[in-house]
Amino acid sequence: MQASMDIARLLRPESLAIVGASEDQSKFGGRLLRMVLRHRFAGPVYPINAKRDTLFDIKAYPDFDALPAVPDMVVLAVPQSSVKGTIEAAASMGIGCGLIITAGFSDAGEAGRKVENEIVSIARAHGMRLIGPNCLGLISAANRLAACSSPVLEIAELPQQPIGLVSQSGALMTTFFDRAWAHGIGFSHGISVGNQADLELADFVEFLADDPDTQVICTYIEGIKDAQRFVAAARRARAAGKPWLAVKAGRTEAGCRAAFSHTASIAGNHAVFAAVCEENGITLMNDLGAMMTLAASMVRYPSSAVNRIAIFTPSGGGGALASDALFERGFSLASFSDITHGVLHEHYAQGQANNPVDFGSRISSDPARAAQDTVAALQADEQTDGIFVPVTMAPFMLTSELVRAQASPFAGNAGKPVLFTVEAGVTSDPLRALLRERGIPYTNTLDEAMNVWTAWRRHAQHQCFEKPRRPDALPSAPEPGTYDEDASKAVFRRYGIPVNAGAIASSADAAVRLAKEIGYPLVMKIASRDIVHKSDIGGVAVGVADEAGVRETFERLCAAARRAMPDARVEGVSVQAQVKGELELIVGARRDAQFGPVVVFGAGGVLVELLAQRAIACAPASNEHIRALLATLPVWRILEGYRGAALAIDKVVDAIARVSWLAADLADRDFELDINPLIVGKHACWAVDARLRIA
Amino acid sequence: MQASMDIARLLRPESLAIVGASEDQSKFGGRLLRMVLRHRFAGPVYPINAKRDTLFDIKAYPDFDALPAVPDMVVLAVPQSSVKGTIEAAASMGIGCGLIITAGFSDAGEAGRKVENEIVSIARAHGMRLIGPNCLGLISAANRLAACSSPVLEIAELPQQPIGLVSQSGALMTTFFDRAWAHGIGFSHGISVGNQADLELADFVEFLADDPDTQVICTYIEGIKDAQRFVAAARRARAAGKPWLAVKAGRTEAGCRAAFSHTASIAGNHAVFAAVCEENGITLMNDLGAMMTLAASMVRYPSSAVNRIAIFTPSGGGGALASDALFERGFSLASFSDITHGVLHEHYAQGQANNPVDFGSRISSDPARAAQDTVAALQADEQTDGIFVPVTMAPFMLTSELVRAQASPFAGNAGKPVLFTVEAGVTSDPLRALLRERGIPYTNTLDEAMNVWTAWRRHAQHQCFEKPRRPDALPSAPEPGTYDEDASKAVFRRYGIPVNAGAIASSADAAVRLAKEIGYPLVMKIASRDIVHKSDIGGVAVGVADEAGVRETFERLCAAARRAMPDARVEGVSVQAQVKGELELIVGARRDAQFGPVVVFGAGGVLVELLAQRAIACAPASNEHIRALLATLPVWRILEGYRGAALAIDKVVDAIARVSWLAADLADRDFELDINPLIVGKHACWAVDARLRIA
Repeated sequence: MQASMDIARLLRPESLAIVGASEDQSKFGGRLLRMVLRHRFAGPVYPINAKRDTLFDIKAYPDFDALPAVPDMVVLAVPQSSVKGTIEAAASMGIGCGLIITAGFSDAGEAGRKVENEIVSIARAHGMRLIGPNCLGLISAANRLAACSSPVLEIAELPQQPIGLVSQSGALMTTFFDRAWAHGIGFSHGISVGNQADLELADFVEFLADDPDTQVICTYIEGIKDAQRFVAAARRARAAGKPWLAVKAGRTEAGCRAAFSHTASIAGNHAVFAAVCEENGITLMNDLGAMMTLAASMVRYPSSAVNRIAIFTPSGGGGALASDALFERGFSLASFSDITHGVLHEHYAQGQANNPVDFGSRISSDPARAAQDTVAALQADEQTDGIFVPVTMAPFMLTSELVRAQASPFAGNAGKPVLFTVEAGVTSDPLRALLRERGIPYTNTLDEAMNVWTAWRRHAQHQCFEKPRRPDALPSAPEPGTYDEDASKAVFRRYGIPVNAGAIASSADAAVRLAKEIGYPLVMKIASRDIVHKSDIGGVAVGVADEAGVRETFERLCAAARRAMPDARVEGVSVQAQVKGELELIVGARRDAQFGPVVVFGAGGVLVELLAQRAIACAPASNEHIRALLATLPVWRILEGYRGAALAIDKVVDAIARVSWLAADLADRDFELDINPLIVGKHACWAVDARLRIA
Repeated sequence: MQASMDIARLLRPESLAIVGASEDQSKFGGRLLRMVLRHRFAGPVYPINAKRDTLFDIKAYPDFDALPAVPDMVVLAVPQSSVKGTIEAAASMGIGCGLIITAGFSDAGEAGRKVENEIVSIARAHGMRLIGPNCLGLISAANRLAACSSPVLEIAELPQQPIGLVSQSGALMTTFFDRAWAHGIGFSHGISVGNQADLELADFVEFLADDPDTQVICTYIEGIKDAQRFVAAARRARAAGKPWLAVKAGRTEAGCRAAFSHTASIAGNHAVFAAVCEENGITLMNDLGAMMTLAASMVRYPSSAVNRIAIFTPSGGGGALASDALFERGFSLASFSDITHGVLHEHYAQGQANNPVDFGSRISSDPARAAQDTVAALQADEQTDGIFVPVTMAPFMLTSELVRAQASPFAGNAGKPVLFTVEAGVTSDPLRALLRERGIPYTNTLDEAMNVWTAWRRHAQHQCFEKPRRPDALPSAPEPGTYDEDASKAVFRRYGIPVNAGAIASSADAAVRLAKEIGYPLVMKIASRDIVHKSDIGGVAVGVADEAGVRETFERLCAAARRAMPDARVEGVSVQAQVKGELELIVGARRDAQFGPVVVFGAGGVLVELLAQRAIACAPASNEHIRALLATLPVWRILEGYRGAALAIDKVVDAIARVSWLAADLADRDFELDINPLIVGKHACWAVDARLRIA
């Protein structure tokens, strides 16, 4: 399905019919028609209203049959009960796209969902595509199309910048358009996706990825409709070199409940979603305001690294708070080059020619030149990635120089990132106006600026990993079933996942023979598929040190099993090497309902409860990818050997990668796999307890 | 020194002289005089200017001698070189308070510091108190005194609310006054403290604690001048029942450097500062905007608990993001009572009568009544502590009902906390105006609202611990010196801090005798004050299991010492019980340069690097206090026994408390004490390695 080619045409209609159009400003159709006309849609607009000859001085039509031509798009702002009939008529007439504002479909329960499905079937039968229902419409500055009823559109002109927004909430779309406009930030297209009955978020993202009027893609997401389409859209955006920023609701249990009650979207497992975004270059944020500011910053400043920040401020106190805020979020304050220091010494008091640069402490008499020289030096300094300008209260005569300096001599989009924060109230409104006029992004709070910087750094640090290559000699996927420890380990051995040596002995003599092969000390466990909690019945022994111990333990474990569960089928006793390592990890894999097989890993043992952070990768994953994820975990410091030699990192990475291949081989099934613990030593690692369940 | 009584008079002067007054608006003295007049200071104002008879139509005076009366306060906006002479003249005339705007004293280096000290001496000799130098002045709505040159004062009237601000940065004071005023938030007094040559932050906090026009105290702090005065001010504020909120710069290394270059304030160890604030009921925040909003909220809504929040919003998407934000910060979304559900069911669609309450999904026809009934139900619901109203774009006709509902029937200050966040841009300005008119606090971003809620909760959760009682039979403080492990443990034993059994054996026979007393297995370590890193020379053995082992080990350790350090004085071999526990903690104590003796504790062993979080208490600390701090650490879960029985928490608490008494006994000295590890078992704990150094 070449959804995007369709959509490129669909979202740039050359003519428009509006069913439910009126002049009544208390109704969606009345407000929407007025907004379409107000923002001067270029093509013909056909209001459809049986009772009126004209609406707002343009000709109205009683029905589709009366139209002089087939419009490219029809907007429906009609009662719920009329939607199906209207779509039927529009589709059979050959209209390519229907935008359904009306709500009361899948958003309102099962009955509505049934009608919604029927409408989609009708449209598809005629090759018609649908946006909505239950959406707030389109706001496309690039098309001069404002097919939306929102009061935020009561502005003279839609500001246009190459930023596209796709939103699963109409209210949030218009809220943040309004907020962005107040900061001088415009958009190419804004699309409220509604129930996504036909076209969905991923389709619109792909449209924006191909759209010449868009450079940065913003999204507000409550739930993913189709994981594969989502990932495909991410690849398309990445291939087009367009950053994709996303705010996701439903990150927590409470947010999931709220999102579900809002759009009946299932938010899914957020940790998996976040991992998918990270793998596919989507930058997650929590804050729509910061997302808009970052998008505008990215449009203006092409940047490949955002870490070493220079602070340039009129207030020492503001500089100190900004230093703390950046440092707390892991940024380093840029150390200036000697050249920069030289320039700063001309303008600032001794001891002040440092980062933060305190404009208030300048000693040279010409503030304009001081500001310009400062910015030029910082822009040229190779040890500085970006400039942060937190502006506190000071005369506009002075603060305005901070803005003017940014444009000179770095006019256009060639410089390093510059972000302003204007902290005062109305007294700084002239400064804000000047920033807007110069097209320089700013926030009104330090926190929002920090959200911008941190997301920008995450974007710059996104890694693109090669497609994983299947290791040689992997077997075919195991059959469905519930595998106990020994059976799971047998599967692992075939996949090349290291396990501690061991086998099942059916007699004490066999156990002794095994013990000689394996070497002491040993762990011995009763082997019975009927006994799940072996420790609880006294079925596990550790530290078995010699032959006498093996014999005694064999009898003791069997006796314990007979006593506790006389009917259990006992296959013998599992005799295993008792391995000693430096660290326990846990490694698991399962099928995520949305994104398929994933592998999950992190600290194990006593650390499990304390270092809750886990890494997640879609399966299969390359060794390089797993290593990079492992390095993000706190436990990496132990693996690297902060108190001695490094542990067997390569072997751990390979083991997890092989688990991911096993998971990938089970992609079609529901399954769960747990290795707890994977014991890691200096030269090896071993899965010493394991479970596998394949449905 | 009864500073506060003085200040109450000083900060409410009835007459004012201004030296350096002019009409020149490019000068501090010119702007300041205009602001004093603009805001209609009630008492006589005496501008002192040798060249003019009048300034702004009021009489000017050539010098102090010409004044008709002795003013209560003199403001100095004169060149640096004239300050000393002016203070001399003013002090000898009997003026009680000098407010010195002029900079260039201790803020500018040693020479300036010297002059500053001279000025303080002169003032003190005459009983005159000083504010500044290098400050931006006073903005006291409660006094109608605007002794400040800032352009933010270009407003008709100073808004007054019972919120006081003391700021170590003049720019931040005026910046956030301006910002707060834009939100309808006023202040009683704002004081820029400058270099704090005489009167300092703690003096002004005590003034506000006693001030009838102030209910909440806000502070911006870069460094503490006098720790004891600071703690005394906190006690005074607490005793007065006035919340003290504080933003501190210099929380990080980068912030410390910036703060130092700003006001030459030493920021100090932030972790200790934070612990002192926590102990003394001061609520630390990172964000001045949120601090103002919280102060205004506290004035309006007296609240003892802020945890279970109800969300009331016009947008499902906005509600979902707010749910995530609250949940991520550890709030619970209120579960409504049956009564509330009953009320909500009248107004909202099935499945929407939950938290968040989505005003956009209401089904009843009267939005005003729906809003009023909703707020009334939430205010009455015993399972709800506060109401959060994140407002997205919607017609003002509807969103205004959300505001109106808050006032009715809960007029005045009787209700639960209500906080609005208005997320849209200029389209929502009418809503903001309505909120200001009704005196309801709001933020413009979700993040700032979260900063308000979380700080409010921390304030509500501040505990007040009883004064610690000295345990019986503690010895007197140990003498200065460097104590090795055995000597440190001897001190600990006297203080009742448990250590593992052990003593120094001077011969292999003595070691064997000791071993019999102690029991196996043993740890043996070479005992020599000259050998610090015993492991490095092979001077430590663990797991010594029997008599033969003791003899062999004794000889081996002595031989190793002779080989590695032939000249070292060897006292013998320390023979110690090898204790086995479930967890390692570290406990340390030292003298903080500002706040005196502190005890520090947290996870030890492999967890040290991974769970960096430590608890800090000023010494001495009560068992109750130490237990409460321990419970805030991640390692508490292990102590509580999440994987089995609880560990010996009481013994750990008592050991740390005794360490704190030892630290307190060393308050007059520089010292360091380390127990690493304190091994914790189910029934006991032991300091198994220790160091103590007393200067």
